[in-house]
Amino acid sequence: MKTLDVNLGARSYTILVGGRALTRAAAVVEPLGFETAPIIITNRTVFELHGGSLLDGLKRFGPSAIVEIGDGERFKSHQTLFKLYREMLRIRADRRSWILSLGGGVVGDIAGFAAATFMRGIRFVNAPTTLLAQVDSSVGGKVGINVPEGKNLVGAFHQPSAVLSDVSTLGTLPDRELGAGLFEVVKTAAIWSEPFVGYLERSLPRILERKANALEHVVVEACRVKAEVVSKDEREQSLRMILNFGHTVGHALEAATAYRRFKHGEAVGWGMLAALAFGRTLGRMDDRSVARLGRLISRVAPLPSLRGIGIEGVWTALCRDKKFRSGGIRMAMLSAIGRCEIVTDVDPDELRRFLVSFLASPGAYFAPGDLR
Amino acid sequence: MKTLDVNLGARSYTILVGGRALTRAAAVVEPLGFETAPIIITNRTVFELHGGSLLDGLKRFGPSAIVEIGDGERFKSHQTLFKLYREMLRIRADRRSWILSLGGGVVGDIAGFAAATFMRGIRFVNAPTTLLAQVDSSVGGKVGINVPEGKNLVGAFHQPSAVLSDVSTLGTLPDRELGAGLFEVVKTAAIWSEPFVGYLERSLPRILERKANALEHVVVEACRVKAEVVSKDEREQSLRMILNFGHTVGHALEAATAYRRFKHGEAVGWGMLAALAFGRTLGRMDDRSVARLGRLISRVAPLPSLRGIGIEGVWTALCRDKKFRSGGIRMAMLSAIGRCEIVTDVDPDELRRFLVSFLASPGAYFAPGDLR
Repeated sequence: MKTLDVNLGARSYTILVGGRALTRAAAVVEPLGFETAPIIITNRTVFELHGGSLLDGLKRFGPSAIVEIGDGERFKSHQTLFKLYREMLRIRADRRSWILSLGGGVVGDIAGFAAATFMRGIRFVNAPTTLLAQVDSSVGGKVGINVPEGKNLVGAFHQPSAVLSDVSTLGTLPDRELGAGLFEVVKTAAIWSEPFVGYLERSLPRILERKANALEHVVVEACRVKAEVVSKDEREQSLRMILNFGHTVGHALEAATAYRRFKHGEAVGWGMLAALAFGRTLGRMDDRSVARLGRLISRVAPLPSLRGIGIEGVWTALCRDKKFRSGGIRMAMLSAIGRCEIVTDVDPDELRRFLVSFLASPGAYFAPGDLR
Repeated sequence: MKTLDVNLGARSYTILVGGRALTRAAAVVEPLGFETAPIIITNRTVFELHGGSLLDGLKRFGPSAIVEIGDGERFKSHQTLFKLYREMLRIRADRRSWILSLGGGVVGDIAGFAAATFMRGIRFVNAPTTLLAQVDSSVGGKVGINVPEGKNLVGAFHQPSAVLSDVSTLGTLPDRELGAGLFEVVKTAAIWSEPFVGYLERSLPRILERKANALEHVVVEACRVKAEVVSKDEREQSLRMILNFGHTVGHALEAATAYRRFKHGEAVGWGMLAALAFGRTLGRMDDRSVARLGRLISRVAPLPSLRGIGIEGVWTALCRDKKFRSGGIRMAMLSAIGRCEIVTDVDPDELRRFLVSFLASPGAYFAPGDLR
């Protein structure tokens, strides 16, 4: 078990990472001085698998209220949010109440947003149960819901009071979900830490076998990078944008396929490959580094094919997502492994031309065998 | 025209108060460096009266988008909120967009909450057009919406980037609305400043005649007090609770009459009278001060009668609103004019007995002629 502190002044908090983080929840929750048992927001599948450990870890707080929401991205809606508020009022929640979210990113995002806005903000503890949520959405305080026009368009910054990342929950995660989370891990390493990229290259087989100490290391290191970035730029004014590496094209691919073909992490996998290939085209990165990251990305998990995705859908989504600023598109790009910068003057025509070619044959940008 | 600075560190802002604050909007808005014209959120009645002045004051920003919501408390709902989000997306609002709310507390609260949560927070400027909104809801950053279970139960703290309090808009305010706002002004004076109470006693006739410089003085002084309190306790951890003077019983009266009989300010008027009379019963305040404030409150405006309001409805609402903390009820009470404290150990039985008697004959607690 390891702990990691996220330094955000008065909003600092501790992440507990390890194979027994849920049953040992009290270690980080007790010092927070809650006067009541939590309101646990979760979904049925996750609660059946991991609810027992969590209730064990929290038994000294007395009986918790358990509120289940539907399983899946479509439940990250304002309908679910308002059901949550009303359920909380029904069970007489007040400003001293606290929310504990047990689940993946959907549960954490909506439960966190409910916490941010219920009676103008109550505390919440996040217990993420997917790799993606453990390495990404649990650090940084971004919470929110989707609206029909797009994902996460309504939300807030609301830091958790603690995070419980129990890597034993990853044992029951479908392979595809694990892979999707690992793409975000690769992103985190790629933008900040060459040694972490090296670790991933060496340890990928043990990570994919879900060895507890390999997973623990991955979660701690990814959270450490994200915490460092976020603590320097909590409200995403500048530096934090490097966390969007791979997301410009990634988001556009998700939107162009109506969020059906790709898991978010998979879209980011493709988005990173595109950003790397485009970066090399612009002479921003050397061939060797591009090939090295391409190889790592392709070893993580198979990526759903780009077949049939036309430039028009991708381009429309990209332009809607990224507002042009006086002529240029803003995009996170690597200058080396472990070094990312925000390029603000990407020429739209050049990017569009590149994407036409990349969508048609992404393999052409990498050496044979580099992409599976 | 006067300006007042609200000091909240990085969230500090300026309030412009005066008879031409709308047409001179650029003076405080220009330095904020917005890149776009505002999205003006308003209602039809207000916009017809004052939209022209505002558009005049903002013309150098180019054409504004105007989004109208319904007029009245029932529109401070999540249905309206989601219509706002979708309308903003339809007109391609993004993180650089800003909201300008033109209207009373309903418009300011919901527009402010939309700003707090749209794409995790965009900036907003508040142009309150009622006395209540100018002296109360425009300072302090409380924004939110109602749910069927109660008012303001969903919300956030989101400070405006500037406030434009144009007292000429008060010229068209119905008498009853002006009175409702003045009760909150009396509250502000009573908890913080004996000289301000003295000013109100002397100047009430000129205020009720809506003389511009009297209104300007009232708004500036009330905002100054509130800004001082809020800057010491932005998130309502302690001191800020004194702003709830008169609200314990006031909220309960509003809820017990289904928000139909009283304007909020009127309920606060009764709530202050109750808190004063109860305070004297407890020996917390001298007869003379109680009589003096009772007289001022009764001069402000006629209060709707308490007739037919039973203790059960009031008590249920009060207990739901104020959670008992280990036996005692928490309540803001005066110890002298200009001095308020949070009493945490009010005996529920004693308060209930007092309320039975007060509801039956409030006049018995004040000298003949003190209450109209």
